[in-house]
Amino acid sequence: MTDSKAGPRLDRRGFMGASAFGGAALVGGLAAAPVLAQEISATRPAEGAPQVDFPSDPRAFGGSGTNRTEMDLFDCEVEGDWPKDLNGAFYRVGPDPQYPKPEQYKNDIPFDGEGHVSMFRIKDGHVDYKTRYARNARWLAQHNARRSLFGMYRNPSTDHPTVDGYNRGTANTQLFVHHGKLLAFKEDSPPVAMDPLTLETTDPEYTYGGRMMGKTHTAHPKIDPKTGGLIAFGYEATGFLSKDIEVFETDAAGNITWQVMVEAPYAGMMHDFCATEDYIVLYLTNLAADAEQIAAGGVHFRYDSTLPCYLGVMRRGGDGSDLKWLTGPNLFCTHVMAGWNEGTKITVDMDGGEGNQFPFFPSKHEPWDPVKGTGYIRRFTVDMGQRNVSTYQAETIYPHLTGMLARQDDRFHTLKYRWGFLNTMGAQDGWAVIDHATGNTRVATVPGFGLSELCFVPRTPTAAEGDGYLIGIGNSQAENGRSDLILFDIADILASDNAAPRARVKLPFRAVGQVHGFWADASAIGAA
Amino acid sequence: MTDSKAGPRLDRRGFMGASAFGGAALVGGLAAAPVLAQEISATRPAEGAPQVDFPSDPRAFGGSGTNRTEMDLFDCEVEGDWPKDLNGAFYRVGPDPQYPKPEQYKNDIPFDGEGHVSMFRIKDGHVDYKTRYARNARWLAQHNARRSLFGMYRNPSTDHPTVDGYNRGTANTQLFVHHGKLLAFKEDSPPVAMDPLTLETTDPEYTYGGRMMGKTHTAHPKIDPKTGGLIAFGYEATGFLSKDIEVFETDAAGNITWQVMVEAPYAGMMHDFCATEDYIVLYLTNLAADAEQIAAGGVHFRYDSTLPCYLGVMRRGGDGSDLKWLTGPNLFCTHVMAGWNEGTKITVDMDGGEGNQFPFFPSKHEPWDPVKGTGYIRRFTVDMGQRNVSTYQAETIYPHLTGMLARQDDRFHTLKYRWGFLNTMGAQDGWAVIDHATGNTRVATVPGFGLSELCFVPRTPTAAEGDGYLIGIGNSQAENGRSDLILFDIADILASDNAAPRARVKLPFRAVGQVHGFWADASAIGAA
Repeated sequence: MTDSKAGPRLDRRGFMGASAFGGAALVGGLAAAPVLAQEISATRPAEGAPQVDFPSDPRAFGGSGTNRTEMDLFDCEVEGDWPKDLNGAFYRVGPDPQYPKPEQYKNDIPFDGEGHVSMFRIKDGHVDYKTRYARNARWLAQHNARRSLFGMYRNPSTDHPTVDGYNRGTANTQLFVHHGKLLAFKEDSPPVAMDPLTLETTDPEYTYGGRMMGKTHTAHPKIDPKTGGLIAFGYEATGFLSKDIEVFETDAAGNITWQVMVEAPYAGMMHDFCATEDYIVLYLTNLAADAEQIAAGGVHFRYDSTLPCYLGVMRRGGDGSDLKWLTGPNLFCTHVMAGWNEGTKITVDMDGGEGNQFPFFPSKHEPWDPVKGTGYIRRFTVDMGQRNVSTYQAETIYPHLTGMLARQDDRFHTLKYRWGFLNTMGAQDGWAVIDHATGNTRVATVPGFGLSELCFVPRTPTAAEGDGYLIGIGNSQAENGRSDLILFDIADILASDNAAPRARVKLPFRAVGQVHGFWADASAIGAA
Repeated sequence: MTDSKAGPRLDRRGFMGASAFGGAALVGGLAAAPVLAQEISATRPAEGAPQVDFPSDPRAFGGSGTNRTEMDLFDCEVEGDWPKDLNGAFYRVGPDPQYPKPEQYKNDIPFDGEGHVSMFRIKDGHVDYKTRYARNARWLAQHNARRSLFGMYRNPSTDHPTVDGYNRGTANTQLFVHHGKLLAFKEDSPPVAMDPLTLETTDPEYTYGGRMMGKTHTAHPKIDPKTGGLIAFGYEATGFLSKDIEVFETDAAGNITWQVMVEAPYAGMMHDFCATEDYIVLYLTNLAADAEQIAAGGVHFRYDSTLPCYLGVMRRGGDGSDLKWLTGPNLFCTHVMAGWNEGTKITVDMDGGEGNQFPFFPSKHEPWDPVKGTGYIRRFTVDMGQRNVSTYQAETIYPHLTGMLARQDDRFHTLKYRWGFLNTMGAQDGWAVIDHATGNTRVATVPGFGLSELCFVPRTPTAAEGDGYLIGIGNSQAENGRSDLILFDIADILASDNAAPRARVKLPFRAVGQVHGFWADASAIGAA
């Protein structure tokens, strides 16, 4: 009953509540203007819009819960011991299709739904729940037309003519609070800016005051803890299928202070990256952008096991000309746990498999292999001080842990770190706490609950690294998928192999599905 | 799995999703000011408000669905053949406790929750779903304080001191659209006015421009089809436990054009009434307001089988001095199906039992009797032209139908009518269509679904009486209580003993519970 996992279990039908496709009538001719949400007063059906009827599918009901709703649940029911001094918000986002897609797009991937953002605002042991769609141009066009207008995943040739040239971003992958904005990301487009408290969309296409050179933005920017600035990149930056990559940094106020455009060996998925104190480490997977497949009306990516994956390393603050693309053991990694450099020696920890971790994308050569897709924590090392460095080293650390969605204490981005976290998989989902200083690991579980990605919450804004809580959604297997927001105290996990959650929010329904989640302190979101 | 039924099944624990009581900490000292919803920008917990934890109760989860949420579900999934020319809104309201009550109020009745309004906006075969609380002073005080502040049902002595003197109305019983306002009623208070399209509360205490003389308003006003005016009354009108009854009429614009204050034999529940072309017919049940029980901290009413029930009859437009209180077979009726007069001969059809239909209220003399509480359609007749008339006649019509929540085609209020409707009970809930002209009855059912109250929808605004649809909520027994909005075509019901719904809205969750529902044409709610 868990959702939002990359990796071997992603192909099961129950993955995402309402991510059902196909079955509706073909779209007809209609007008859809890109207007701001605030400009919509009376939303009425476009002429002749087909009635909404997602195809009969086990994914569509039962597991669907509150998909497609926008709601407020004030002062949720809670259990346990909510820390009275915890004051902030836990945000989540995931794909939640507005409309069923026409039958010819039934092979689209489940991640192609519009971004549905949820927030648990936590203060004084009280928790308010709120969800809203990221109302960008794509969302508004479909809302006004009351139908699906966008075809296959990152293939604009499959779109309805009325949305030709639209930003196709779904804002469905991850969120980040920076310079007072809640930014919702999809890696093929600029972020959508939302109000961090009301979740109203304030800018459907946020480009840092027009300063972004490229057209894309990673879902996983990093913080520079010394400056409070944001570090980000975008691939296929200058246009569809381009090999260009924009890398940039801002100050704490969101002003771009450094940016370069560099080039990848080929266009392929670059989902996450690493920033250390002195280096940018890009990571190119062999889930390659496939022009032939796109021309045939398919999705953007195809797994090509014959292509090398690359680490791309360059100095921060330079002109990008020092970028080197390094090869090594050909691993398929998805998320960065953390990374740092000591002088010219760089270490990056990622979760990843030996092969493709996204089984819903086509494979060029061989069928998907769940064993090769299984994720372990991979430690990449390279010394950029060596002459003519062209390779990295990789080892699998903590081989008893398999999982995905690696996280850290985000306040320690760029720095040498001690505490890592991983969603583990097995007979029971778990949240692993990894102490790199001692090599000890503990895994917390919630019997009967499938767990989504965890997120680290500092005990106080100035608490030591790793001193705090893990927060995330669990879906009850016994209660028709009903969701709890679960809070573990990491001190409890470290003290016992059978730690229980310190506190829960008991939602009376199944929450919308998520990919990732993000914690923001009250001070970052303009809250008292 | 049905909810919102008066009658024998009301005592079962699963009655109302989140109507759970007791268990929270005692309320402390706090400040709560009666402000408008619009004035609340950042709603934060009052100092020291107890965490929300409804007591463990089979009613609290599983059956609870989307209780306490306020949501929008745009363009719901639908099935079947939604009439393309149907353009209007189906509204529902029911009690949905904002907060668990302190333990000492655990014997409160399940109808004492705050009014949660839902709307299905239907046009072009597309259906948008929206729910909002009626945000009156009671709701806002509790919202700001983040706790329950009001004690037992209609017993202000049990309230927190900070809300002393508050209007205690919950606006949880029925809705009515008139002169552009959506009015939400609780019979102990003035209506709450809401915007019919946004469901925003526009007046937390609507008194027809200050013209209401009394402090109370029935949940079941009627329309005068000749003038478009509204006809209403309020009991305990001049104050708590008073015997005074205000009766008034408005024009189509909501201006009060006639009002009188009359007196009841005793203070007791007067839930519904009948207006004919020439008469007002009040109905007093022997669910008496009980000062002794109230003084002891109990609820407002106690069933006293030794008291007579009364029909109170007076001419419309007079000074009220002609009001006569008539007795007859001592029936306990709840809702008026319809009524009319031919000269001085008055006929009123109500659903009712031989004894108390509200088992959750205490009984003064004998335990509650489910057989005596069973509802049948009772026809009351009286000729006011007789000398010294003091009694009415009553007969049970259609004795093969048992049920409650009688309705008619509301466009035929005051007039002699042909078509009546009833929620029937038995092995399977049903919606009965009754043709008084022929005596024929048909009962539509939806296998596997428990049905809430039906509402008649004219096929077009000018369709003949009874030509149209029945609409209402059904909860699926097989799908964890998930709700459908169900539309039957009455022509289909009349044509077959096994008619199927013509169309459905398939909600992915259990809808909030309801007492009553109301249909409004688009022209009445300012919609295109």
